[in-house]
Amino acid sequence: MVERHLIEPSSSVLGVIVDEVRQSPLLALIIFVPVALVVERLMPDSHTLLFLLSVVAIIPLAALLSRATESVAAKTGDAVGGLLNATLGNLTELVISLAALQAVQYLLVKASLAGAIVTNTLFMLGGSFLLGGLKHHIQEFNRVNARFQASMLFLATIAVLVPSLISEVDQPPAPAVSQTLSLGLSILLIVVYGLGMFFSLRTHKELFASVSHGEEEKKPWPMTLALALLVVVTLLVALVSEIFVGSVQVAAEHLGMTPAFVGFIVVALVGAAAEVTTAFSGARANRLDLSIGIALGSAAQIALFVAPLLVIVSYFIAPDPMTLQFWRGAVTMMIVATLAAVLLSNGGRGAWYAGVMALALYAIFAFTLFVLPPANPL
Amino acid sequence: MVERHLIEPSSSVLGVIVDEVRQSPLLALIIFVPVALVVERLMPDSHTLLFLLSVVAIIPLAALLSRATESVAAKTGDAVGGLLNATLGNLTELVISLAALQAVQYLLVKASLAGAIVTNTLFMLGGSFLLGGLKHHIQEFNRVNARFQASMLFLATIAVLVPSLISEVDQPPAPAVSQTLSLGLSILLIVVYGLGMFFSLRTHKELFASVSHGEEEKKPWPMTLALALLVVVTLLVALVSEIFVGSVQVAAEHLGMTPAFVGFIVVALVGAAAEVTTAFSGARANRLDLSIGIALGSAAQIALFVAPLLVIVSYFIAPDPMTLQFWRGAVTMMIVATLAAVLLSNGGRGAWYAGVMALALYAIFAFTLFVLPPANPL
Amino acid sequence: MVERHLIEPSSSVLGVIVDEVRQSPLLALIIFVPVALVVERLMPDSHTLLFLLSVVAIIPLAALLSRATESVAAKTGDAVGGLLNATLGNLTELVISLAALQAVQYLLVKASLAGAIVTNTLFMLGGSFLLGGLKHHIQEFNRVNARFQASMLFLATIAVLVPSLISEVDQPPAPAVSQTLSLGLSILLIVVYGLGMFFSLRTHKELFASVSHGEEEKKPWPMTLALALLVVVTLLVALVSEIFVGSVQVAAEHLGMTPAFVGFIVVALVGAAAEVTTAFSGARANRLDLSIGIALGSAAQIALFVAPLLVIVSYFIAPDPMTLQFWRGAVTMMIVATLAAVLLSNGGRGAWYAGVMALALYAIFAFTLFVLPPANPL
Repeated sequence: MVERHLIEPSSSVLGVIVDEVRQSPLLALIIFVPVALVVERLMPDSHTLLFLLSVVAIIPLAALLSRATESVAAKTGDAVGGLLNATLGNLTELVISLAALQAVQYLLVKASLAGAIVTNTLFMLGGSFLLGGLKHHIQEFNRVNARFQASMLFLATIAVLVPSLISEVDQPPAPAVSQTLSLGLSILLIVVYGLGMFFSLRTHKELFASVSHGEEEKKPWPMTLALALLVVVTLLVALVSEIFVGSVQVAAEHLGMTPAFVGFIVVALVGAAAEVTTAFSGARANRLDLSIGIALGSAAQIALFVAPLLVIVSYFIAPDPMTLQFWRGAVTMMIVATLAAVLLSNGGRGAWYAGVMALALYAIFAFTLFVLPPANPL
Repeated sequence: MVERHLIEPSSSVLGVIVDEVRQSPLLALIIFVPVALVVERLMPDSHTLLFLLSVVAIIPLAALLSRATESVAAKTGDAVGGLLNATLGNLTELVISLAALQAVQYLLVKASLAGAIVTNTLFMLGGSFLLGGLKHHIQEFNRVNARFQASMLFLATIAVLVPSLISEVDQPPAPAVSQTLSLGLSILLIVVYGLGMFFSLRTHKELFASVSHGEEEKKPWPMTLALALLVVVTLLVALVSEIFVGSVQVAAEHLGMTPAFVGFIVVALVGAAAEVTTAFSGARANRLDLSIGIALGSAAQIALFVAPLLVIVSYFIAPDPMTLQFWRGAVTMMIVATLAAVLLSNGGRGAWYAGVMALALYAIFAFTLFVLPPANPL
Repeated sequence: MVERHLIEPSSSVLGVIVDEVRQSPLLALIIFVPVALVVERLMPDSHTLLFLLSVVAIIPLAALLSRATESVAAKTGDAVGGLLNATLGNLTELVISLAALQAVQYLLVKASLAGAIVTNTLFMLGGSFLLGGLKHHIQEFNRVNARFQASMLFLATIAVLVPSLISEVDQPPAPAVSQTLSLGLSILLIVVYGLGMFFSLRTHKELFASVSHGEEEKKPWPMTLALALLVVVTLLVALVSEIFVGSVQVAAEHLGMTPAFVGFIVVALVGAAAEVTTAFSGARANRLDLSIGIALGSAAQIALFVAPLLVIVSYFIAPDPMTLQFWRGAVTMMIVATLAAVLLSNGGRGAWYAGVMALALYAIFAFTLFVLPPANPL
């Protein structure tokens, strides 16, 4: 990611945006935010158009959100900053999922959760190994840290999947039992997540040092501006997410996709766009530790924080609370993806073919989900 | 474990017991052994009371059994001693299971077998990592040995689970086929276990050196006394186990638990109490190798020795022999627990959060089993 | 493998065969090739006899095929030679499977594919660890390479198994959907395989150096002779395979076996005989790297090349194309076998008991399959 610091960064919101757009052309897509909002007023039934517009509009918003979070984090010092980064790292994902939750589209929510874990591991790790490996023959990385993080991710994923794994095939538990189980588990998972932050930000922060270090390449924005942007952009994401969720069902049908595919691939990729960019450029710069840290950390956050939070929130906003019961294919994909992460990080060395294998698995999952959508509603 | 050697150890049975009780207050619970036996005569229908009394009474007996075995082992030299330790290490578990087998309570037996593997890995390993990690920032251990033992445990667990893993979901095998399979497999597993003892006690004992070393901290008892105690305490465990098995069904119902939960959590914890104590104090003393060796070795013993032995014995004492067919949730929990053991031992370093994760999984399993007991009788 | 170079190798086809037979007595079994062909003319209904004759006849042919491939490879230089070795390494397996494919015996084909992966990992790796470990106390090997290869094998196996893993238990996909999925996947897998060859033969050949090195112990045959033998022996394998496939169903019934057992154990062992010999002698010579390279490489080739090729070919020669849908037991066995390979190669050290464990698992799988054949036709 080549940066041009020739132009002095202005400090007005508009100036910052213009600046950022100049630096990363992707941000120019921000023009689709007002377009999507206007089209929704004028042609509320053009579902396919609205769907496409909202997907494209979320990409630059996710990037801005990520930048705003980093800026606030940079100003507040290590502990609070890390906390912010850890909590808001999947904010886009969270806001989209909340919109889907409110519309009681549980399959979309679950598909996007499962997709986020698979995308963060197979796609983000695989792409990092491939792109890094094409530039560097063999890339060494700190395997002790990577292994530790991968192990923790594996345990976290299994923990989220316990309700799906345990239930008898022929006798699924009664909804009430499944809901009690999911709620109890979600509370426990969030406690474990909190302890994990205490571990990584306080007692053992040296293990995670290289990761946070990588985020500080860009010049942080002024504090008030960053905070303002954080609020404004989150609201915009919420607005666009509503358009997205409202149009996805009909549009997906038109485009020959299922909501599960859209959630698993599209939402997950859109939500992770900003992190993917950072991970890939880290790999190109021979800093595979950074890429692995982002990928594994973000996936663990989905499992330990975003998923249980959505279950808990569903108790307050939905008539019939959401459970942690995933369909069988999603369970398999999540377990395979985290096992792949364990294996890829186990060796301590990266080469391009490892990336090819991970990306091939990702492609196979996407293709399978496209051809063979989950049968039962959840 | 602070030891007070101020008092000369007497050599009468009673004297030894008084001595031991003074050193480890837990042994005072031995008073509940006669209480349980008396209450069983006087109030044979107070199931809940009998259940609670028998559980509490087994704890000190298990500790005494463990001490007696160690004392005999210490006197007989390395090879025979190791053999004894290896064979009698899960004697409490074995005696309780035999009582349940005789009462044809197969679900209880299988739950306690599955629970023993999960408790030894997730609870014992997790607790060791947590307690050790709270005292020492990072704990290093011999990862080559730990990895080897964890791999062997994984293969052993898979071997025991083959009948459960292979059988088609929609077409479970006929009972006769399942019994033939389980019997053949059990014989093979015990042979593999025998070879494993030959490996760890004879050809490659240096790999397991640190573990046996840890047991010799306490002063061994005189030989005849140790042998006498071994016999007497085993008989007492058998008596109390019968009370336990006779009361568990009704008592569990009263207490809102299922026999599966009782077997999985209560029996497993009671049976492992003595080893848990040793493993935890090893971890506190920064000897994580010792803790890992005890946990993994004990779990492997359940899979390769206790489980197949019970299957074989069931051919002689039960009308309808027991199989190695576990319910689906137990299979998942055992595989996840041994995979967790592989991951935890892979890195060669311990930190408190790894323990939190393992304990959280254990808590999740316990909670799930409490809310969602296995549906089909086995 | 002791070699006697006292006799000058002659260069006529017959002379070479006589020479080879003298060096490896196994080749004397080649006499069964004409016997099988003759018996098939005279007694076409002696299925059991024909089955046994064809199995025995394939063993020396497989060994010759392997030698011929190596000889051609040795003459053509590194890259092309490696390509040949990689492509023709499982030629016997491929030819037998093609014969079974033409006879629309899909269960036999799938069983032999699954069996080949399990045999290459559990049996070949296990035997190597055991035989090597009986001679050498502890064997060290390059764990970084072994881990890398094992990880790639795991991902490859998972990729092949995605259709089996994803499909809902209660709602298997429509045949047309399953076929589309399998065809698309097969094309992708072969592309990944091609990239893997580019990786191992061109960009990163130093990682695989020790493996190819081990093949050059025997004196290569002259080029024209080797090529002629390659063609002639392949044709013979095809002829004998047809006898085998034509007789297996009835013969297996007579012998109390199922086609699944025959494919999984007999075909897989026969097809791998030559490689097993090389792997085992490598282990005895304390070159465990070589054994691991052959075992893991061959298993990965089955997953990424042989299996997808058979699916694609089935579109041209069979009325109803074959899918990648395996029965549940086969899926479990393949995953367990590759996980075992990951664990065995993870430590970087071999000892005899690790071999015992792997072989025990193999025996358990064989025994289970014998007692409990797959229920549903595929």
